[in-house]
Amino acid sequence: MLSRMEHDSIGALNVPAEAYYGVQSMHAATNFQITHRLLHPVLIDSIVMVKKAAAITNEKSGKLDQQIAQAIIQACDEILDGNLRDQFIVDAIQGGAGTSANMNANEVIANRAIEILGGTKGDYSIVHPNDHVNMSQSTNDVIPTAGKITVLKLLPQTIKELEKLEKAMEEKEAEFDDILKMGRTQLQDAVPMRLGQSFGAFAHVLKRDIKRLKNVMDEMKVLNIGATAIGTAINVDPYYLANISYELSKVAGISLKQADDLIDATQNLDGFVSVSGVLKTCAVDISKISNDLRLMSSGPRTGLSEINLPARQNGSSIMPGKINSVIPEVVSQVAYLIIGHDYTITMAAEAGQCEEYIEKSVGISTALCPYIGYAKSAEIAKKSLKTGISVKELVLEEGLLKEEELKEILKPEKMTQPMREKVMKAVS
Amino acid sequence: MLSRMEHDSIGALNVPAEAYYGVQSMHAATNFQITHRLLHPVLIDSIVMVKKAAAITNEKSGKLDQQIAQAIIQACDEILDGNLRDQFIVDAIQGGAGTSANMNANEVIANRAIEILGGTKGDYSIVHPNDHVNMSQSTNDVIPTAGKITVLKLLPQTIKELEKLEKAMEEKEAEFDDILKMGRTQLQDAVPMRLGQSFGAFAHVLKRDIKRLKNVMDEMKVLNIGATAIGTAINVDPYYLANISYELSKVAGISLKQADDLIDATQNLDGFVSVSGVLKTCAVDISKISNDLRLMSSGPRTGLSEINLPARQNGSSIMPGKINSVIPEVVSQVAYLIIGHDYTITMAAEAGQCEEYIEKSVGISTALCPYIGYAKSAEIAKKSLKTGISVKELVLEEGLLKEEELKEILKPEKMTQPMREKVMKAVS
Amino acid sequence: MLSRMEHDSIGALNVPAEAYYGVQSMHAATNFQITHRLLHPVLIDSIVMVKKAAAITNEKSGKLDQQIAQAIIQACDEILDGNLRDQFIVDAIQGGAGTSANMNANEVIANRAIEILGGTKGDYSIVHPNDHVNMSQSTNDVIPTAGKITVLKLLPQTIKELEKLEKAMEEKEAEFDDILKMGRTQLQDAVPMRLGQSFGAFAHVLKRDIKRLKNVMDEMKVLNIGATAIGTAINVDPYYLANISYELSKVAGISLKQADDLIDATQNLDGFVSVSGVLKTCAVDISKISNDLRLMSSGPRTGLSEINLPARQNGSSIMPGKINSVIPEVVSQVAYLIIGHDYTITMAAEAGQCEEYIEKSVGISTALCPYIGYAKSAEIAKKSLKTGISVKELVLEEGLLKEEELKEILKPEKMTQPMREKVMKAVS
Amino acid sequence: MLSRMEHDSIGALNVPAEAYYGVQSMHAATNFQITHRLLHPVLIDSIVMVKKAAAITNEKSGKLDQQIAQAIIQACDEILDGNLRDQFIVDAIQGGAGTSANMNANEVIANRAIEILGGTKGDYSIVHPNDHVNMSQSTNDVIPTAGKITVLKLLPQTIKELEKLEKAMEEKEAEFDDILKMGRTQLQDAVPMRLGQSFGAFAHVLKRDIKRLKNVMDEMKVLNIGATAIGTAINVDPYYLANISYELSKVAGISLKQADDLIDATQNLDGFVSVSGVLKTCAVDISKISNDLRLMSSGPRTGLSEINLPARQNGSSIMPGKINSVIPEVVSQVAYLIIGHDYTITMAAEAGQCEEYIEKSVGISTALCPYIGYAKSAEIAKKSLKTGISVKELVLEEGLLKEEELKEILKPEKMTQPMREKVMKAVS
Repeated sequence: MLSRMEHDSIGALNVPAEAYYGVQSMHAATNFQITHRLLHPVLIDSIVMVKKAAAITNEKSGKLDQQIAQAIIQACDEILDGNLRDQFIVDAIQGGAGTSANMNANEVIANRAIEILGGTKGDYSIVHPNDHVNMSQSTNDVIPTAGKITVLKLLPQTIKELEKLEKAMEEKEAEFDDILKMGRTQLQDAVPMRLGQSFGAFAHVLKRDIKRLKNVMDEMKVLNIGATAIGTAINVDPYYLANISYELSKVAGISLKQADDLIDATQNLDGFVSVSGVLKTCAVDISKISNDLRLMSSGPRTGLSEINLPARQNGSSIMPGKINSVIPEVVSQVAYLIIGHDYTITMAAEAGQCEEYIEKSVGISTALCPYIGYAKSAEIAKKSLKTGISVKELVLEEGLLKEEELKEILKPEKMTQPMREKVMKAVS
Repeated sequence: MLSRMEHDSIGALNVPAEAYYGVQSMHAATNFQITHRLLHPVLIDSIVMVKKAAAITNEKSGKLDQQIAQAIIQACDEILDGNLRDQFIVDAIQGGAGTSANMNANEVIANRAIEILGGTKGDYSIVHPNDHVNMSQSTNDVIPTAGKITVLKLLPQTIKELEKLEKAMEEKEAEFDDILKMGRTQLQDAVPMRLGQSFGAFAHVLKRDIKRLKNVMDEMKVLNIGATAIGTAINVDPYYLANISYELSKVAGISLKQADDLIDATQNLDGFVSVSGVLKTCAVDISKISNDLRLMSSGPRTGLSEINLPARQNGSSIMPGKINSVIPEVVSQVAYLIIGHDYTITMAAEAGQCEEYIEKSVGISTALCPYIGYAKSAEIAKKSLKTGISVKELVLEEGLLKEEELKEILKPEKMTQPMREKVMKAVS
Repeated sequence: MLSRMEHDSIGALNVPAEAYYGVQSMHAATNFQITHRLLHPVLIDSIVMVKKAAAITNEKSGKLDQQIAQAIIQACDEILDGNLRDQFIVDAIQGGAGTSANMNANEVIANRAIEILGGTKGDYSIVHPNDHVNMSQSTNDVIPTAGKITVLKLLPQTIKELEKLEKAMEEKEAEFDDILKMGRTQLQDAVPMRLGQSFGAFAHVLKRDIKRLKNVMDEMKVLNIGATAIGTAINVDPYYLANISYELSKVAGISLKQADDLIDATQNLDGFVSVSGVLKTCAVDISKISNDLRLMSSGPRTGLSEINLPARQNGSSIMPGKINSVIPEVVSQVAYLIIGHDYTITMAAEAGQCEEYIEKSVGISTALCPYIGYAKSAEIAKKSLKTGISVKELVLEEGLLKEEELKEILKPEKMTQPMREKVMKAVS
Repeated sequence: MLSRMEHDSIGALNVPAEAYYGVQSMHAATNFQITHRLLHPVLIDSIVMVKKAAAITNEKSGKLDQQIAQAIIQACDEILDGNLRDQFIVDAIQGGAGTSANMNANEVIANRAIEILGGTKGDYSIVHPNDHVNMSQSTNDVIPTAGKITVLKLLPQTIKELEKLEKAMEEKEAEFDDILKMGRTQLQDAVPMRLGQSFGAFAHVLKRDIKRLKNVMDEMKVLNIGATAIGTAINVDPYYLANISYELSKVAGISLKQADDLIDATQNLDGFVSVSGVLKTCAVDISKISNDLRLMSSGPRTGLSEINLPARQNGSSIMPGKINSVIPEVVSQVAYLIIGHDYTITMAAEAGQCEEYIEKSVGISTALCPYIGYAKSAEIAKKSLKTGISVKELVLEEGLLKEEELKEILKPEKMTQPMREKVMKAVS
């Protein structure tokens, strides 16, 4: 098999020559062999939409060469059309807040853009995964943003199915309106109720769940895109910061909004906990409906036997003619899975603090990227850690920047400014 | 100790002569020795508000004698003023969907009303716990209604505290705006951030939690009061059904609304799951803030030491001068408790179906209560179960009602009607 | 595509001619499109081991024709060797307590055995999925038994990995024994500790987890195989009941034991809750170790920086040279998933009662299977439900059995006996 | 009200003159107004047992003056006899790993011991809460140890109740052995089962739960007593380290054992997670039994009606003669609470790491306590933090210790030694 050599801070690796993914994707695919399930296709769509919107905005701001931008946009469109999906090779569960998923997208798009521009895959001097595809972005704003778009794409499908179910329950309400659920004994001594009323009650609880889901979707429309690493919008151009959510709304076909406080929006995942909580409530309700249906259909000859569920398959390997209520059963099983996942999400959100602190120990090399590129910055950062010589000194020593420039770039107040002005404006 | 003899279906019991509670409360207090915590005082308030509003409505409808109604109302007002609180003797955790709590309130109010009317406690011929105090009600509508009023009384207190916390965070945001969190090494190589920005982010997440809590309160304002046992409004007068939520709103000082579908509202506790889910999200957020504060204050000499938390108590029994971040710690502990309780509530709501089915096997004796009284109906029901003779036959045998009357009372369509008309009207 | 026609109680279906699965598998594959993940390969192994052991035992008892038994055994061996795996087409999550998985195995084995005997797939007169492959079994004993064997095959792999991790921690304990974790300030004012001691503590907690996992494996070795539908061992031969666990132990290569009380063992899934609880404890411990490692390695220049974790991949898409502690991070993520799953399992086990009651309403047609076959019994059962004529009458009407025979077969005491004698013997 | 003035590092406070608790308890009682429930009485017992055993061991080692030791021991015995219980004023939920509970005990015991020796409460020159009552201890070893003793005292009561329940089920098994649960239709077409078999199955699952609880108790018998602050046994005498678990076993009447690795035993709370997991499994089983009993007793006239549960109280406020299955209901409610608490415990255990790191930043002042006392050490620590002058310098400046002594005391290797030797010995 033909291959090309690629390297990152970890070391060199042979990448299959025809692969669009690169060295970082391969490292991640090796490191995380957890679920053996890849990224959800709608999540891939969402990440690629962010990449496309970023390229458009970066081009308009003048930061990104037009030719490169157009090649990136074309590559994104091809993926959105369903191409190159097998190039997304990282496991759905991965450490690092989604760096692997983000870099996988960056590498695939870069290599396809290189091809479009007539280059050879792996020649990142033409289109660079970090400097060009990931321009003005960080995993910390790309992945939560893509996660929210994913929810906004998938939840309407869930709502649509729930609306069908609600309608079916209403039809049964009308159909069974005249059936009195009387006592089942000879003595006829029971409080009566119409069977339709039970189904009407099912319809009403579903209506509430649908309303809750629609309401909670609003939480997903507020994004931290533009926040980059820690919410201070380091390395982000004011034009980009002001326009990215507009461009992304157009690309995604959803009305999206940038958070007033990007630091908050970067740190906190409470919106996802909130959505999961509403889904859990819905799961509880549907499981309860399923339990009711199972009891109402219990029989055939003992039990309540108020309704017959449609037979869907043989119910037993030993008992001939037995029909189980398999559909309500599987619905409860899925509900328990959703409830368990709600707990997983709760714990993950609560534990989010450590990540944040580790994220903050970044190194000023980040601020150098727009001036000397990601690869050179990484080299300097590594050397500084090894030798103890400061990044500043090394940059000057190697003549990469003039002292005056460097001083301006590294002004700390400046690095916290973009985001701060945004909030100040929002408040006033 | 002086005592009076009371009896219910279970048997006779000596009740302390001075007690306002009665035989059913005593049975329940004996049966449930679980948490050794009594009902929350706001829950007692809420149950008593329901009783007061029911008495007002029953009097206006002409079903309840004016003198009895006024005595019940006065008794309720006395309890709402803080009297007779030691007469509520049932454990906070009790089976039976709250029958014990409801009966405890019925008995205390009845006995105080008897006293007001010049009678002797225990002489239920004057004011009866079931026939008068519980008139037009069932545990199944009283307790969920009281539970929702309780949430509506308590949540605003929580929200007020959260608003204070949010404001405090905003003050720190301003106070710390100029403090740059720089690198902590000699080489000064870190990405900077303003300390105030961290506190601004805390304020913003709290703002979202407050908004969520305010939104979810609406779910609590829709009641099943008037639904009685299974949501069909059996034994409820049309005037009562139409006016109880208005009277209850006045008594409680909160704008409340009757559910369009009382069967749904009686069966489903999803509103509580929803509130609990929002509280859980808030707990996650506050625990995360606490974790951040602990990390930021870790030290004094190692760790991040960005802030000093106010010293509240000695931190150690062995290490002199040590100050722990005890307040953030206890906040996380409480958050974990809230998260655990969310699970308890989730499971309880999901398991609700069995209760419902058991509730439905009621016996037509319920429909007889307004005509021959609860005590007589109970006697007939018991006799029917023992002998196998139908309730109908026994009623005729004992000459309690004429055959024509009985036929009219027990028409099954009629028993499901009140609620059905209500929904039909809501739909059209 | 060529196909064959098959039918079950639900109706007729075209099955691909070359398929080894049959109509029931196809119904199930259509009904359950939940996770889009198929059965775990070790679970398939375990079900097939049960089938093989059952065939061996049924042959020895004289109930199963030798030629058929040998064909079934050969088919099982082929599957255990890795063949026909693509014929297992049902989703991992399915209602009905696993009937679909069991029937999928029965059909695949039957059709392969038919082939071995020179017949055409689908000609169940040669080898029948229910009457032969599933002989003396029910989903209710096959699937829990296979589930336990699966745990017994997989847990040792987990334990082996934990032992490697424990050993690695012990090596670090020795390697770091001389390194004092001193204060990190100029004043040198800290309580010291050896770095090795931290790793020794990690090793010790893992040792406890390993011990707990080994202990809990014993719970998995007690099976309800032979219990069939509800634990009364209906349709099971005494020889089979006495020998199946011995034969299954040989096939599985694990020492297994039949439960003294098969009704209990059929109803209760507490063993799985118990295993899951121990795995959850282990997940908590490993997540805590991961958190410690992340804090100890936080840096490079701020934070504690006590250790360097090996670099596994670039840590950031924006920050050059940044290395994240991705492995500890992903470990915590997996731990949270395990903890969430523990909740799913807890709820599923708690909700198990409804299933049981529905299972009990079986129909005497079950007892007829050994005499007139599953297909004929199913036909009779269906007819009885439709017409209201009793199964007994229909059997006599069609001349399937003589009245005397039938009376003997349907003696109720007899149907509850096998299991009862077993318990009586165990007690005395 | 008469009062005495006390002060700690936080400041001075008026303590009621007759109070046995002191300033630190009061600070804690003010800080934590969470559950309004005080410490569980058995937890108070357990803490006091640790204090008594420590005094005995410290006296024997010659570190603690005999007269003081005897006064402490007498004070402990008085509390164990049920006296002074109202002096334990701190909330059950409190931050700081239990420092407040530990200090509350230290203060009450110190003040009672002072009285016994003829002094005035508050005169800590006679018996000091930290230097004498807490000698050789830290909250970090006292509270987990007391927690384990509490479990060891309470679990046997739970087991005893479960054994009674198991026996009751076995009696019903025998009583109902002859009752066939036949079909409930005229056609008599059901698979039969003996009613006794259901109760036998209940007995068997309880037997397993009892076995699991007995097994898991062993985990609670391994203590970190002697570990003090971080597991290195700082400030602990070799005699004490070697004998405290023996003395504590005698005092508690339970055979207890010191952990081989005290650092592990101090950091990890997995034993509690393990116990909670077993209790959760038991709760699931009992809730399932309750659900079965409710279904079996559902009726009276519809439903399964296989058994009658004993009537315990009226079942309804509106339905005469209705008897609910309130006991099974409340059992399920309690089970859900236990399951929720299992989650709380899981999260608390998982989040344990932060505490640990904060604990480690202790200051060498700890090592000075045995030489210059807790109060003086605290003063020095506070001064050092304020002025930046090192503790060492301040101690020399004030002439509290000679330079040679100080050098010996603060040798870092020495501070990590006691525990290290213990492990080395255990290994060899």
